Amino acid sequence: MSKTVLVLNGPNLNTLGTRQPEIYGSQTLADVEDACRKLGDQLSLSVNCAQSNSEGDLVTMIQNARGTADAIVINAGAYSHTSIAILDALNLFDGLVIEVHISNIHKREAFRHHSHISGRADGVIVGCGTDGYLLALRHIATRG
Amino acid sequence: MSKTVLVLNGPNLNTLGTRQPEIYGSQTLADVEDACRKLGDQLSLSVNCAQSNSEGDLVTMIQNARGTADAIVINAGAYSHTSIAILDALNLFDGLVIEVHISNIHKREAFRHHSHISGRADGVIVGCGTDGYLLALRHIATRG
Amino acid sequence: MSKTVLVLNGPNLNTLGTRQPEIYGSQTLADVEDACRKLGDQLSLSVNCAQSNSEGDLVTMIQNARGTADAIVINAGAYSHTSIAILDALNLFDGLVIEVHISNIHKREAFRHHSHISGRADGVIVGCGTDGYLLALRHIATRG
Amino acid sequence: MSKTVLVLNGPNLNTLGTRQPEIYGSQTLADVEDACRKLGDQLSLSVNCAQSNSEGDLVTMIQNARGTADAIVINAGAYSHTSIAILDALNLFDGLVIEVHISNIHKREAFRHHSHISGRADGVIVGCGTDGYLLALRHIATRG
Amino acid sequence: MSKTVLVLNGPNLNTLGTRQPEIYGSQTLADVEDACRKLGDQLSLSVNCAQSNSEGDLVTMIQNARGTADAIVINAGAYSHTSIAILDALNLFDGLVIEVHISNIHKREAFRHHSHISGRADGVIVGCGTDGYLLALRHIATRG
Amino acid sequence: MSKTVLVLNGPNLNTLGTRQPEIYGSQTLADVEDACRKLGDQLSLSVNCAQSNSEGDLVTMIQNARGTADAIVINAGAYSHTSIAILDALNLFDGLVIEVHISNIHKREAFRHHSHISGRADGVIVGCGTDGYLLALRHIATRG
Amino acid sequence: MSKTVLVLNGPNLNTLGTRQPEIYGSQTLADVEDACRKLGDQLSLSVNCAQSNSEGDLVTMIQNARGTADAIVINAGAYSHTSIAILDALNLFDGLVIEVHISNIHKREAFRHHSHISGRADGVIVGCGTDGYLLALRHIATRG
Amino acid sequence: MSKTVLVLNGPNLNTLGTRQPEIYGSQTLADVEDACRKLGDQLSLSVNCAQSNSEGDLVTMIQNARGTADAIVINAGAYSHTSIAILDALNLFDGLVIEVHISNIHKREAFRHHSHISGRADGVIVGCGTDGYLLALRHIATRG
Amino acid sequence: MSKTVLVLNGPNLNTLGTRQPEIYGSQTLADVEDACRKLGDQLSLSVNCAQSNSEGDLVTMIQNARGTADAIVINAGAYSHTSIAILDALNLFDGLVIEVHISNIHKREAFRHHSHISGRADGVIVGCGTDGYLLALRHIATRG
Amino acid sequence: MSKTVLVLNGPNLNTLGTRQPEIYGSQTLADVEDACRKLGDQLSLSVNCAQSNSEGDLVTMIQNARGTADAIVINAGAYSHTSIAILDALNLFDGLVIEVHISNIHKREAFRHHSHISGRADGVIVGCGTDGYLLALRHIATRG
Amino acid sequence: MSKTVLVLNGPNLNTLGTRQPEIYGSQTLADVEDACRKLGDQLSLSVNCAQSNSEGDLVTMIQNARGTADAIVINAGAYSHTSIAILDALNLFDGLVIEVHISNIHKREAFRHHSHISGRADGVIVGCGTDGYLLALRHIATRG
Amino acid sequence: MSKTVLVLNGPNLNTLGTRQPEIYGSQTLADVEDACRKLGDQLSLSVNCAQSNSEGDLVTMIQNARGTADAIVINAGAYSHTSIAILDALNLFDGLVIEVHISNIHKREAFRHHSHISGRADGVIVGCGTDGYLLALRHIATRG
Repeated sequence: MSKTVLVLNGPNLNTLGTRQPEIYGSQTLADVEDACRKLGDQLSLSVNCAQSNSEGDLVTMIQNARGTADAIVINAGAYSHTSIAILDALNLFDGLVIEVHISNIHKREAFRHHSHISGRADGVIVGCGTDGYLLALRHIATRG
Repeated sequence: MSKTVLVLNGPNLNTLGTRQPEIYGSQTLADVEDACRKLGDQLSLSVNCAQSNSEGDLVTMIQNARGTADAIVINAGAYSHTSIAILDALNLFDGLVIEVHISNIHKREAFRHHSHISGRADGVIVGCGTDGYLLALRHIATRG
Repeated sequence: MSKTVLVLNGPNLNTLGTRQPEIYGSQTLADVEDACRKLGDQLSLSVNCAQSNSEGDLVTMIQNARGTADAIVINAGAYSHTSIAILDALNLFDGLVIEVHISNIHKREAFRHHSHISGRADGVIVGCGTDGYLLALRHIATRG
Repeated sequence: MSKTVLVLNGPNLNTLGTRQPEIYGSQTLADVEDACRKLGDQLSLSVNCAQSNSEGDLVTMIQNARGTADAIVINAGAYSHTSIAILDALNLFDGLVIEVHISNIHKREAFRHHSHISGRADGVIVGCGTDGYLLALRHIATRG
Repeated sequence: MSKTVLVLNGPNLNTLGTRQPEIYGSQTLADVEDACRKLGDQLSLSVNCAQSNSEGDLVTMIQNARGTADAIVINAGAYSHTSIAILDALNLFDGLVIEVHISNIHKREAFRHHSHISGRADGVIVGCGTDGYLLALRHIATRG
Repeated sequence: MSKTVLVLNGPNLNTLGTRQPEIYGSQTLADVEDACRKLGDQLSLSVNCAQSNSEGDLVTMIQNARGTADAIVINAGAYSHTSIAILDALNLFDGLVIEVHISNIHKREAFRHHSHISGRADGVIVGCGTDGYLLALRHIATRG
Repeated sequence: MSKTVLVLNGPNLNTLGTRQPEIYGSQTLADVEDACRKLGDQLSLSVNCAQSNSEGDLVTMIQNARGTADAIVINAGAYSHTSIAILDALNLFDGLVIEVHISNIHKREAFRHHSHISGRADGVIVGCGTDGYLLALRHIATRG
Repeated sequence: MSKTVLVLNGPNLNTLGTRQPEIYGSQTLADVEDACRKLGDQLSLSVNCAQSNSEGDLVTMIQNARGTADAIVINAGAYSHTSIAILDALNLFDGLVIEVHISNIHKREAFRHHSHISGRADGVIVGCGTDGYLLALRHIATRG
Repeated sequence: MSKTVLVLNGPNLNTLGTRQPEIYGSQTLADVEDACRKLGDQLSLSVNCAQSNSEGDLVTMIQNARGTADAIVINAGAYSHTSIAILDALNLFDGLVIEVHISNIHKREAFRHHSHISGRADGVIVGCGTDGYLLALRHIATRG
Repeated sequence: MSKTVLVLNGPNLNTLGTRQPEIYGSQTLADVEDACRKLGDQLSLSVNCAQSNSEGDLVTMIQNARGTADAIVINAGAYSHTSIAILDALNLFDGLVIEVHISNIHKREAFRHHSHISGRADGVIVGCGTDGYLLALRHIATRG
Repeated sequence: MSKTVLVLNGPNLNTLGTRQPEIYGSQTLADVEDACRKLGDQLSLSVNCAQSNSEGDLVTMIQNARGTADAIVINAGAYSHTSIAILDALNLFDGLVIEVHISNIHKREAFRHHSHISGRADGVIVGCGTDGYLLALRHIATRG
Repeated sequence: MSKTVLVLNGPNLNTLGTRQPEIYGSQTLADVEDACRKLGDQLSLSVNCAQSNSEGDLVTMIQNARGTADAIVINAGAYSHTSIAILDALNLFDGLVIEVHISNIHKREAFRHHSHISGRADGVIVGCGTDGYLLALRHIATRG
């Protein structure tokens, strides 16, 4: 039986492809999500994608993942550094959580070095570009 | 003439009963809201209940309570510690405000010790479990 | 060719006219927006107005202004003091940004003296009441 | 009946147009004052302009504005950051006070970030160039 | 032979009677100066009165008191807290110097607690209202 | 033409499968290396594997990778936190470097939160168990 | 063609000759200014002299020196230690600036050891009595 | 049934007898190991001895003790103060660990006062000379 | 009778000639060792050369030099700054120890200014390039 | 009767003209001393010049000036910042002391801002180039 | 064409051979200088030797080396730790500078660990006894 | 057999009798030296006296005392506080060293409280005026 995965992106990640492409690449979020779904098909993962600029919506989406998803791949963007509510929602979720950051946050401003979410995540994939989402899915697939 | 009370819950409180029941108890939010409404009947309080994971929605609900409610019982969850916007909305409300926290936030992580809302609240009830909501209603009833 | 301006208001500004009118005046937000649009007609500015209590919605609206607006007039309310996500969204926008605060924030609590947005804004207009929005529009019109 | 406005400039602002024109623009103070008077005519404001390099003269001019002016537009230049006497004189004045700074002081040296005058001003307009004076007049005209 | 006394007032003290009368009383500076002269007659003191808003003018008046006055009663207002130049001028004067403040500066903002002039004054009279000037004259009379 | 990848493991990683299997899993290092080589075959990567408990041997292996490998996947174990010599050796290497940690080091002792190697790595994969090595290989394959 | 020099004196320097003559000498300011003009005649310098107790007047005089003087000799007295406005005015002036202090400020109170003006001055002459002005003129004459 | 004990010595301890004999005694490491084995015979302990100067080899030897030894007596020499890798290897070992230092490290240089190994050891014997090894064996024998 | 000298190099020095040749020169370690041996022949020194990236091997090589070598020339590279074990091994050696650094470590990062080995070395030769090794040999030859 | 003046220069000032001529000018020390003697002739000053790189010689020269010189012009170079002995020698001298620095030391390294000699000097002339020596002589001549 | 080298020794080095011979050896300074000259002959270096106990003399000798010497070998003795004047003189010299200390200063009092001269030196040779001078000459000879 | 004593004075002590006689007394250095020699005759000490203002000369004189004097009485004046070179020279001397200061240096400026020489001296006599020299001689005589 296949697993269901929620791929969740936070604020401003919907602008992928048009935001500092030299750093974030030229793929749009739709491109990334398509790639995730296609890879999901290969891996027998049912991949649902969502993005929101809203902290509250992200909380709700994580809550709704309880019972409907087996794993969450999350790039919470700027909320990674400030949101306790998202951390709390992830703490309610029993499945696997993989945190993704497109750029290597260890090479950026000091206030981006700490993520509240890493304290909850099972795995963290940093600096592998948008390929990081696909790696996260592959990892989830291996956790049969 | 009876008073109307808005019982308002913030992020992740919709998961009551399924979230760390050893701490938060096994009552769901629906159970708690039912209990509030029943006690309201006894106390001649008209009790309306609402919950949202969104800081913005909570702001809106508090705004709407102006003219429709005489008092607010609020557990703003994690936003208690970070939201100036909710504080501002409560400042717009003329009636009684009672802040409730199910667990004793003073025994938890340091970042949960300060609530912006306490600066506006008339009363604060902490660590009495879900009974805190009922105590809040009883107190409002005494403020004839 | 006329310029398009987005007039964007944040949390609790939808209560204008009913919130401490001795401070904020008796004009409603609709009144203010009408005035903005009328002045826009005189100044050959196409004025679009929006408000939200949600940080995420404000982020989205700023993103949407890319390509559809030449300038943004923004009063982010309480989020001025806390939101990195809104700052990031404004950093994605290439046009003129004028920050407006209705009251004089320098006379209020210390935590309202600093605005993350001022670091990005081109101009800042504080304490001129709702007229501040109109002044911002006039200034934009002069920046041919 | 028209209102009378004193447009008051402090030390070194008489050198406008010849001082770092890349920052302050090429308009002289006379140009700015002419523009203020012309706009005043349109707005039914009687605009009087004055400038002094002397702290004491600025104090006296503000005192004299009591009874002769309905509003003051003031750019106190370097004295903004050091003069308590000017603040005290403004405290004696009952009318509207709008503080103007041509450049965005929030982007300059730290010692220019704080203005004693902002504690008294009704409105503060920063970073809008010499247009800031005109915006201030327009605002005063609206405060019928 | 009678002594000559200069009663010297600094910035904004020319507005006495119209400035916060609940604090400074309803006497105008002219009233105070009349009272000083009348008391001078009784005490065989020749009393000359002067006021200026200008730090430079106050320096000049103190310089001129050399040879023409035996004592100075000075309320330097806001310049008390910042002017080394007035201190230097007083250092040039050989006679008695009594510093007067109408209100109790020690109960006001921190930046009003220190007066450079006190380092030179022979006596300091604070918080006795406008009666402080009269007490200063009485004291000078006793120093036959 | 295929790329060559060195998969390099540091101290105690040869005990995989027998060390806290609830954390590190039941795969031995040989299993992991086999999996890497097999995946390499699929991805047209020539995978060479090595392990040492010796800091010096790791330095040597990295040196030898110059000219013989296009990329390095490295889990330096405890030496991640203390070895300048390994960092220096990696600085001599021109190719891609992916750092892997089997467990989530952000959940462990404070002295394991900082890795000297992250300052040099292109990507960092943490907490994905032994699958992290495979993910690293897949990412290298995508960097054509 | 001769150069024009402005010799500018600040607060209390008009009392020269009567102020602590054991320190400052018995020459009056008029004597000093005469000596400057006479020496100027010898050196083919056109010497203009001015003094003011007012910070603002000194600012104005420095501004006026732009275009009318090739060099400024300035003894700003007590304002040396406190005035940013005078420093700003000197920064507007393109010619040579020689700072003079009659007494040796290094032997006096600590608050007289630092001069804001020295940061702008080309040369500083201290403790040579009123001869310091003449030395400054001579130096200017040598800077053909 | 007898227990097996690994007596493990770290860097430079192979030079015992020839290194500062006034401190370390004249016994060679072979003498010490013989004494250990002889005492082992009396105590029904099977004693195996090993020494290495290499941090990596010590890690390996500790790993190999898993399954072949019931207890380890370890004097890690200088690595005691710096090696996390040896600590990690000891953490993999389930049996008794007794740490020995021949001299009293607390009386020596400050950098020898802290041993990472002590955090894992069951017992620590310091400053008893080479007799410390024998005491360790005796203690192990008592732990039936 | 000739003396025997061990020329010992530490981690990453085997990459000489290929590592930042603008700093370290284009000579390989083999070139340097050849030069040492040739000079040894001239000076009647029997020169043995060794290099290791391993701290433990360096310790062992130093121990083995006891009885087989009369002097050691050592460039311990990065271990100079961190290894107590190498210092201890050198303390066991009775012969002459000359520490060599190719570059002038006093001009590099602060953490390279201190060498544990200098506390034991008889001589230290810094900043003379690879010629430093030859100078060290010449010095040893003079210590007949 | 003419006065005798010792012009004394300290360490490295004998290299004038060849040391950073863009700062110190192209005049040699001999040129400067010639100019001093020539000006002395005009001013009826007997000018003796001396230079030494030796702190002791400078002390002796200052002692010898007692009884043979009426004034000293001293540029002690680097010893200005460190020599107590020169300060003590100057304290023994009853005549006029003028300290000269060719460059403006207030614009150089912090350790050159303080001169022990300024605490003893009567006058200090800074930043006037080698003309400073001539100004010093002129000043001495005026102190009849 | 041969190079000229100045071998310069500072205070107390003239006592070589009689000062703690167990540390400094039994060679006198004359012996050392002879050896330098003889080695110079072999290396085609023209070697000039000088010594002084006087800081000023050393400054002079370094100045004189400009134009007459291609390199300086300097052992400034105690002045190494305190003299800015010698550092300044060396900064005036364009050629190679090799600093020599006979004893190992890293084993002596803390105040001998820092040398002002090392900041200017090209190479530093420490603790090689009087042979250090010869090594310095050899190194200079290799720098063609 | 009589002992020979060198009485050595440092900078500015040659001015004794003419330097602040209220502190140092009216005796000249010649007087003091005569008194020393006379007392020496009584005590069977052969007293030689010397003085220099030069640090280097003092070093040389101390060196020369080796072999010619049994003891040194030294007042190094200002060099006491700064000279390591004099300390080193005294360290070369095997005989008794008594340090003398005429005034009580502990009552003077802070920078005179520490003497490098005291670390080497056998006795220190402070604040006994010129009698201190005689006391020193008497003490040396008792050390038969």
